[in-house]
Amino acid sequence: MKRNVLIIGAGGVAQVVAHKCAQNNDVLGELHIASRTVSKCEAIIESVDEKGAMKVPGTFTAHAVDATDTAAVAALIRQTGCQIVINVGSAFVNKYVLDACIETGAAYIDTAIHEEPDKICETPPWYANYEWKKREACAEKGVTAVLGAGFDPGVVNAYARLAADDYIDEISSIDIVDINAGSHGKYFATNFDPEINFREFTGSVYAWQGGEWTENKMFEVGREWDLPVVGTQKAYMSGHDEIHSLASNYPKADVRFWMGFGDHYINVFTVLKNLGLLSEQPVKTAEGQEVIPLKVVKAVLPDPASLAPGYTGKTCIGDLVKGTKDGKPAEVFIYNVADHKDAYNEVGSQGISYTAGVPPVAAAILIAKGDWDVGKMVNVEELDPHPFLGLLNHMGLQTSIRDADGERELSFD
Amino acid sequence: MKRNVLIIGAGGVAQVVAHKCAQNNDVLGELHIASRTVSKCEAIIESVDEKGAMKVPGTFTAHAVDATDTAAVAALIRQTGCQIVINVGSAFVNKYVLDACIETGAAYIDTAIHEEPDKICETPPWYANYEWKKREACAEKGVTAVLGAGFDPGVVNAYARLAADDYIDEISSIDIVDINAGSHGKYFATNFDPEINFREFTGSVYAWQGGEWTENKMFEVGREWDLPVVGTQKAYMSGHDEIHSLASNYPKADVRFWMGFGDHYINVFTVLKNLGLLSEQPVKTAEGQEVIPLKVVKAVLPDPASLAPGYTGKTCIGDLVKGTKDGKPAEVFIYNVADHKDAYNEVGSQGISYTAGVPPVAAAILIAKGDWDVGKMVNVEELDPHPFLGLLNHMGLQTSIRDADGERELSFD
Repeated sequence: MKRNVLIIGAGGVAQVVAHKCAQNNDVLGELHIASRTVSKCEAIIESVDEKGAMKVPGTFTAHAVDATDTAAVAALIRQTGCQIVINVGSAFVNKYVLDACIETGAAYIDTAIHEEPDKICETPPWYANYEWKKREACAEKGVTAVLGAGFDPGVVNAYARLAADDYIDEISSIDIVDINAGSHGKYFATNFDPEINFREFTGSVYAWQGGEWTENKMFEVGREWDLPVVGTQKAYMSGHDEIHSLASNYPKADVRFWMGFGDHYINVFTVLKNLGLLSEQPVKTAEGQEVIPLKVVKAVLPDPASLAPGYTGKTCIGDLVKGTKDGKPAEVFIYNVADHKDAYNEVGSQGISYTAGVPPVAAAILIAKGDWDVGKMVNVEELDPHPFLGLLNHMGLQTSIRDADGERELSFD
Repeated sequence: MKRNVLIIGAGGVAQVVAHKCAQNNDVLGELHIASRTVSKCEAIIESVDEKGAMKVPGTFTAHAVDATDTAAVAALIRQTGCQIVINVGSAFVNKYVLDACIETGAAYIDTAIHEEPDKICETPPWYANYEWKKREACAEKGVTAVLGAGFDPGVVNAYARLAADDYIDEISSIDIVDINAGSHGKYFATNFDPEINFREFTGSVYAWQGGEWTENKMFEVGREWDLPVVGTQKAYMSGHDEIHSLASNYPKADVRFWMGFGDHYINVFTVLKNLGLLSEQPVKTAEGQEVIPLKVVKAVLPDPASLAPGYTGKTCIGDLVKGTKDGKPAEVFIYNVADHKDAYNEVGSQGISYTAGVPPVAAAILIAKGDWDVGKMVNVEELDPHPFLGLLNHMGLQTSIRDADGERELSFD
């Protein structure tokens, strides 16, 4: 039994995490949230109070911390007595927060792979460059670290494991498809931090196919998908965190990630990229000012958090898993459909933040209850998916399946 | 007779002006060039030396000056004994250089309307906001100031006057068409300073139609033009300097300006504009740095001067003037065709800089010889076009005409 949660970060996903922790504070205990800007943390706590989200009376406290300062994070963990850390800060801070957990023994949960500000799309498997180097340290100290426990990575890793456990004997391919069929009504916007969003697509697209890493350019490989609820949608092979762990855990399967993009998004992205405006390397203006173009693009785009009130439509994210069952070809599509407006009404966020923010709280609950408190570093597909997906069914993210028997919701109760 | 020329500016157009002044230094006398960065002036003089462009032995000297410092410019005019100033610096410096000429009595020539850095597309007639306020001062002191003496504005104003003098009795419309059918081989580039280039298209498009100013959005009104040499080209109604004076001098005629744009240019422009990246108003990055987006776009785009060596193809710029002749409907298209490669071979610049840089030197020669030394402020259409166009025919910019009698070169000898 672990109790008391420290949330690192105060962006759109942290907002969802905070609300969901509050809704489950009978299990999770005292709540804390910390970021560089304490006023952002306070605003999130205020929104929790406004919704009356705390299940039982309890504390929710805001702190200022520089999350790249391991010693400061460790001190905060000790000071607050938190045994579980949910890291939903920028992907740039992961390794520092993880080190603080190893130092203090707190359980660690994150939702994205570590990134270095000056590098994009690192060589696969990306986890091996940072997080996995701490596997032994976690095992030695018995520290539970659940990597990539958002939706994708996260829930989609659990979907792959569920397919392997319950539906397919020999998996030949895992295709993760992420479609946002919603509309924010702006000329152009990214659904999370533009800096991280664009970085995903400016380098090489890695996939695991035929037992080896393959490399493509972004938007080089695209195909149409016929999906539940959102219908026919075009998605492009993209680099993504979960490929890097699923390829290690299912080396005999092809593992690919497909992200949906409209023609308009691709056009804007292509113009910005070709002009050099997505570069993370500084340029000098005629007046001699040093500027990183990507940071200026971020500055002119709408704040992703500002999109929530007007966002309509649905997302559909799932795994198409193919292989054999009882010696015959079989395939399942395991998926979730989320609604932007429902998410906003419940926690004040859009659907992308909602799908990313609910799962790490489910993981925290499973660690608090012991089911997932494994005392080592794992990716989500290494854990039993049933309690996780069962919990998510009751927390707003229903798992469904489409197979030879049709489309239906899955129950894990 | 006026002698000795001071060139203000050291960009792509200044390069052409310098070469053409050198080729005519028997008439123009001693040559000087000044800009904020003296090394740019020195590089231009070096290129003049390399081509052996000086017609007769003479001096060509580089100076450093802040052209927004009227006193400094006036001191430089006095120190060098220059009686003619060719201002091809940024459009932001016009009013300061003009004041220095009024103070010292030197003749003033520029190629673009004055702009304030924080304003775009000012209300018509734009000249009335700055230059024309100095008309009386020029007249009182007998200072010759020829405004907008590049190609457009400049030569196209002379074409309108030529049509009025020689071909059309009553003018009903003047449509200026500017087509660059050349190719620089880059993904995207502007042919002159991107900051000035984009500013032309981000505000309202003013035209003079039916005896009043009309206002449209950029790319709202477009049509195809069938033109000599470059063929069928699409051009869009755009705001441009010469409309603001031609509408005053030919108030009974509709006056419009049409700029050719390919679909690719329009797409890139539209994306940048809609995202707010063409704004001249500062934004703040997440890190708190204040940045003007347009200056960052300028920083990532190719330097226009760098396009010259690989530029191929031709430009076609001219006036379609309609009206009546001897009581019958008549129309003429008076135009020039310039070749990018020819321009580069002669003066090391691309065709856009060439067409802009040759005419102010022709104007300087006419002032030196007395023909255009009118002792007051004028726009080009207020001057006799024949000596100007005659000189340009011998300086690399041949005037041609297309009318009921077909296409042919015009001679003014």
